[in-house]
Amino acid sequence: MSESILKSSLKMRVRFHECDPLQIVWHGNYLKFFEEGREDFGKKHNISYLDAKENGYSMPVIKSVCEHKLPLKYGDEFEVETSFVNAEAAKLIFQYKIFSSGKLICTGETIQVFTDKNSELVLNNPPFFLDWKSKMGLI
Amino acid sequence: MSESILKSSLKMRVRFHECDPLQIVWHGNYLKFFEEGREDFGKKHNISYLDAKENGYSMPVIKSVCEHKLPLKYGDEFEVETSFVNAEAAKLIFQYKIFSSGKLICTGETIQVFTDKNSELVLNNPPFFLDWKSKMGLI
Amino acid sequence: MSESILKSSLKMRVRFHECDPLQIVWHGNYLKFFEEGREDFGKKHNISYLDAKENGYSMPVIKSVCEHKLPLKYGDEFEVETSFVNAEAAKLIFQYKIFSSGKLICTGETIQVFTDKNSELVLNNPPFFLDWKSKMGLI
Amino acid sequence: MSESILKSSLKMRVRFHECDPLQIVWHGNYLKFFEEGREDFGKKHNISYLDAKENGYSMPVIKSVCEHKLPLKYGDEFEVETSFVNAEAAKLIFQYKIFSSGKLICTGETIQVFTDKNSELVLNNPPFFLDWKSKMGLI
Repeated sequence: MSESILKSSLKMRVRFHECDPLQIVWHGNYLKFFEEGREDFGKKHNISYLDAKENGYSMPVIKSVCEHKLPLKYGDEFEVETSFVNAEAAKLIFQYKIFSSGKLICTGETIQVFTDKNSELVLNNPPFFLDWKSKMGLI
Repeated sequence: MSESILKSSLKMRVRFHECDPLQIVWHGNYLKFFEEGREDFGKKHNISYLDAKENGYSMPVIKSVCEHKLPLKYGDEFEVETSFVNAEAAKLIFQYKIFSSGKLICTGETIQVFTDKNSELVLNNPPFFLDWKSKMGLI
Repeated sequence: MSESILKSSLKMRVRFHECDPLQIVWHGNYLKFFEEGREDFGKKHNISYLDAKENGYSMPVIKSVCEHKLPLKYGDEFEVETSFVNAEAAKLIFQYKIFSSGKLICTGETIQVFTDKNSELVLNNPPFFLDWKSKMGLI
Repeated sequence: MSESILKSSLKMRVRFHECDPLQIVWHGNYLKFFEEGREDFGKKHNISYLDAKENGYSMPVIKSVCEHKLPLKYGDEFEVETSFVNAEAAKLIFQYKIFSSGKLICTGETIQVFTDKNSELVLNNPPFFLDWKSKMGLI
């Protein structure tokens, strides 16, 4: 249920230098689009305090997946739909769908963990994250 | 069995511009390292004719996965181990392991398909790919 | 005079993966911002037909310069001001200024030439470019 | 005179994702090659201690220029020749020439300054840099 609520959608356009000799977006650049989607989500749902410096945490990506259905070309406009997946573990999970002209271009997922100032993995959800979840009605 | 034979290993070093404000390799750049590993594999095992232009095929990546265990920093030397996964379907599947100083940094996988000159998906293994598989004792 | 008329201004924001371990935009990424500025200029002033495929020309960049005054950090909003420099030779010259919070971040310039379908340098201004210049009151 | 002595030469190969839809290296990527050349120079001539952290200095690039003569394509092998320009001011100036198959591909220059721990510009050459210059017979 929460998944259907906590989404954001960001419009972007393919830059020339994001395309490869096959005239399409180089597959690795979709992770950049996901990152933009994730940040857009943070702005819309007020988790910008997730910022490492303010809370003493970093949130490195420990897994990323991207599945391509259709290519994007230079100049194409597209939309990154970012959905929050409410996990119990101390992880930030986002799922992505990229659409262009009404067609599904790709789907993806990233998983982030929390590390503290000593770069040590944090096993429990940090207080600021629990606060946010609570505010959002997720717990 | 074939998996243990068909591997390649490429030494690389982290470039400054591949690192992010967290002082580590930006997660999306690992797909660049995988691509280098894949190409290195092609050179060592003579599948450079897989090249789109010569055979009339392209091999777009349709899925990529990367799981991070440890970070890499600027200047770190590492090794990309690329293994061919012998699939029956008309797909090119590679698995990757990146090591640095004897430690596992990340694992990954990419899946590529074949498309023809009209960018149409090719459902059967192209002749040149079957030839290569045969030469390598994979079929 | 024309220089003061033919400008465009594009708002952008620094992406995380555009920053380096010094926590600032990696210097080479400013050429990406200039490219975005150039394209924005093309949209606003109708030189999108400059596109290689439609007119049989490519416009490779043969020189680029960037001078940095102040750094940009992750999340900073900035503006790329792109100005057309009206040259007589068969060249496209753009000058750039990037501003953030009212401060000058950097200046730059790119020079492009025209090449034909055989990748040969075109010494005279192509007809479509002269047409555009004429429409814009530049000749 | 010193210029002819203090050089380094690094062999590289064009990666697929460094090329753009025109099938050539995207012009902005040459700044990555220059950076690699610069680092290679540092290794060969022992200025790796120039590293910001160890000496408390950063060396941001304040100007970069690249002039293109010929394009590079995917897979092309090339050589980055990096030359130190012995300036009196507190600046690090490098000039670059990239060659491939005996042909000059491009030339370039970067200028770096020294900043201290407070990100303030350092107007005089830092001691470690003077030491290095002295060892190299440049002063």
